[in-house]
Amino acid sequence: VACFTNSVLVRKRSGGRRPQAELLTIGSELLSGKVVNTNAAYLGRELTEFGFRVAFQQSCADEKRSIQEALRLALGRSEVVFVSGGLGPTPDDVTRESVAEYFGARLVFSKEQYREIARRYKRRGKKVPGIVRREAYFPENAKPVFNRFGIALGFVIEDRGRRVIVVPGVPGELERLFINHLRPYLKRSFPDLRPLASLVAKTIGLSEPTVMRRLSDRFFRLGRFQFGIYPDVGEVALRLYVEDQRLLGRLRARIRQVLGKDIYSYSEETIERVIGERLRTRGWTIGIAESCTGGEVSSLITKVPGSSCYLKGSVVPYDNRLKSRLLGVEADLLRRKGAVSREAAIQMARGVRERLATTLGLSLTGIAGPSGGSRGKPVGLVWIAIVSPSGTQVWKELFTGDRRQIQDRAAKKALEHLWRWTQR
Amino acid sequence: VACFTNSVLVRKRSGGRRPQAELLTIGSELLSGKVVNTNAAYLGRELTEFGFRVAFQQSCADEKRSIQEALRLALGRSEVVFVSGGLGPTPDDVTRESVAEYFGARLVFSKEQYREIARRYKRRGKKVPGIVRREAYFPENAKPVFNRFGIALGFVIEDRGRRVIVVPGVPGELERLFINHLRPYLKRSFPDLRPLASLVAKTIGLSEPTVMRRLSDRFFRLGRFQFGIYPDVGEVALRLYVEDQRLLGRLRARIRQVLGKDIYSYSEETIERVIGERLRTRGWTIGIAESCTGGEVSSLITKVPGSSCYLKGSVVPYDNRLKSRLLGVEADLLRRKGAVSREAAIQMARGVRERLATTLGLSLTGIAGPSGGSRGKPVGLVWIAIVSPSGTQVWKELFTGDRRQIQDRAAKKALEHLWRWTQR
Repeated sequence: VACFTNSVLVRKRSGGRRPQAELLTIGSELLSGKVVNTNAAYLGRELTEFGFRVAFQQSCADEKRSIQEALRLALGRSEVVFVSGGLGPTPDDVTRESVAEYFGARLVFSKEQYREIARRYKRRGKKVPGIVRREAYFPENAKPVFNRFGIALGFVIEDRGRRVIVVPGVPGELERLFINHLRPYLKRSFPDLRPLASLVAKTIGLSEPTVMRRLSDRFFRLGRFQFGIYPDVGEVALRLYVEDQRLLGRLRARIRQVLGKDIYSYSEETIERVIGERLRTRGWTIGIAESCTGGEVSSLITKVPGSSCYLKGSVVPYDNRLKSRLLGVEADLLRRKGAVSREAAIQMARGVRERLATTLGLSLTGIAGPSGGSRGKPVGLVWIAIVSPSGTQVWKELFTGDRRQIQDRAAKKALEHLWRWTQR
Repeated sequence: VACFTNSVLVRKRSGGRRPQAELLTIGSELLSGKVVNTNAAYLGRELTEFGFRVAFQQSCADEKRSIQEALRLALGRSEVVFVSGGLGPTPDDVTRESVAEYFGARLVFSKEQYREIARRYKRRGKKVPGIVRREAYFPENAKPVFNRFGIALGFVIEDRGRRVIVVPGVPGELERLFINHLRPYLKRSFPDLRPLASLVAKTIGLSEPTVMRRLSDRFFRLGRFQFGIYPDVGEVALRLYVEDQRLLGRLRARIRQVLGKDIYSYSEETIERVIGERLRTRGWTIGIAESCTGGEVSSLITKVPGSSCYLKGSVVPYDNRLKSRLLGVEADLLRRKGAVSREAAIQMARGVRERLATTLGLSLTGIAGPSGGSRGKPVGLVWIAIVSPSGTQVWKELFTGDRRQIQDRAAKKALEHLWRWTQR
């Protein structure tokens, strides 16, 4: 979950000569807040990387008048207008008709798209319902964009130097149509547009102000570039766009110099994947004993394909007696020190490592709240331990937030320690 | 993750006499797709429930000219314009200045907000940096909206029957300012506006077409209402808005009649919470043995506060030998039938129930892919078992999608079975 706070830190250093693209997302559900507009984020990112200046995005309701008003405005200022949504079969979906009417064009039928629709229904043993026929129509002044990823036909209109691109709002279809048809189309239409070079760096364990302080003003005087900083749970990502490849090299060198030891990836991969790659390369296996996070660390690690190569298993001893029964934590120690203690964390990590016969044992024990805290052991206190052939290490952490945030932050912190451990 | 497909099903049956509100979200990061616009979703939902017609939303870059152009457009058609973002301290943030300039107003200083800023810095033992002073300014023709949840002052301008409301883009601050200051302000400003009544119903285990078929056309002839259908992993939610309270009762009765046995909640709560409430009421405890989902079911259940009352613990026997060692699944059975089998699922659920001494044992074993599938046991095959004092039940499921989707769908299906079990 990226946070808006970063807006205060986004610096724009890019030239203004790039052609302008604009997004028009259609659907009442976007305006009533029922659905978060991920299409706008996707298209915005793709068009920016393509080299367009994306200066506006509008959403409007499924109403002819509103759609045409928004389209008029967009065509008045932008060279490429991307319209998504409102191409479905029900009477509410009026994007197709609104755009055609705007250009004074009739709708014509695409046999090719209709064959695709019929094929899809046939596969499920059904006939095409009458209302679905609409989805194979396009304005006569448009080029159809054949959609083999879904039902609704897309289309492109070129008019007085402007381009209107209309695509279905289903995210999966929109993304595939963009990659397979529309990016090539834009490449042909704007042959001189140089894509922006981009640079990603994902740091872990640092706060946003710390990242900014390490970069310092010197970094921002290296040249003209677009800079974005995006905090997520326990991590901060940097994403830069730049026109000049040599500048990109200088920026990368500087980032590596001041942040390198906290960067786990220079691409979009997750820390779970990076850890997995490390464990696999080293031939190490791991067992996890997690209490307050309830299986979250284990679940994150098993989201990576092939994780069964290194994760042997996990135990969630939520009840304290299970810490003894399943992991061999001394009952006496639990009585003396409590389940949330340095000693319990170490014994949990040792226990899971021995019982699962793994190279590494990782454990978490803490208080996720909202109840269960005390003066000496407040809500948010979490002990994390790693036991390995080369030794044992244990960390005391204190997280803030609600139950879910404490769990998410503790899980990410455990992954951070594990990543650093596999780096050594 | 709600899906855009629902746009084809959204029916609008509401009158057009409600005042129009419009959203203007400011920030280059929204347009370059770095950040998903959750503020627009939040404000859209709140203003719709308040009774406004939300017909437009615009995003624009952090540029004076763009902001003023968008503002002019919005004021030309909407009675309330909500502007968020671009109030930070860096030179990129120009919302404050752009709005003041638009109305030809000077900026004036709020001592009250500056005291709050100083207090916040002092708490961290710091002085207020010079650039932050800007955030306590507001246009002279505005009423300041004091922000005790953050740094940046908000403000409201009333001009020729229009209202411009400007708030910081940090989601937490925006939401608190809305609840504490702006909703009361709108109530005073629009005393006659009747909030829409809303109805939520969360179904599980049904597809979107099935829900629509069960509702049938009869449902949509019951009266004028706004209808939204939102598929998520393994579940489908309905959200309706209506002006007439009596109609709401008829809609609820019909929904209950045709979907009741698959509805787990008539509010926004999660299935994990509903299950937790059931287990707690019945005094039942549970142990979980999950293989292909890697701890996801356990993690979901422990996200609920107080889950330690009923979840005793979980075991993730990712390595097959652990299925025997930790859960007592017969090694011979694993050889004969394989770890992904009806028999293994049952023995896992029995094993975890016995070892953890719980009322219920829940198990999942399957093939999440992308590799590991075979002709007889394809990727996506998952066995789910529940063992209880009253008996044992086992389900064979086949999920489609990539690894993550299969894991998410399997975890949700296990929760569905568990919910139905606790319903009996």
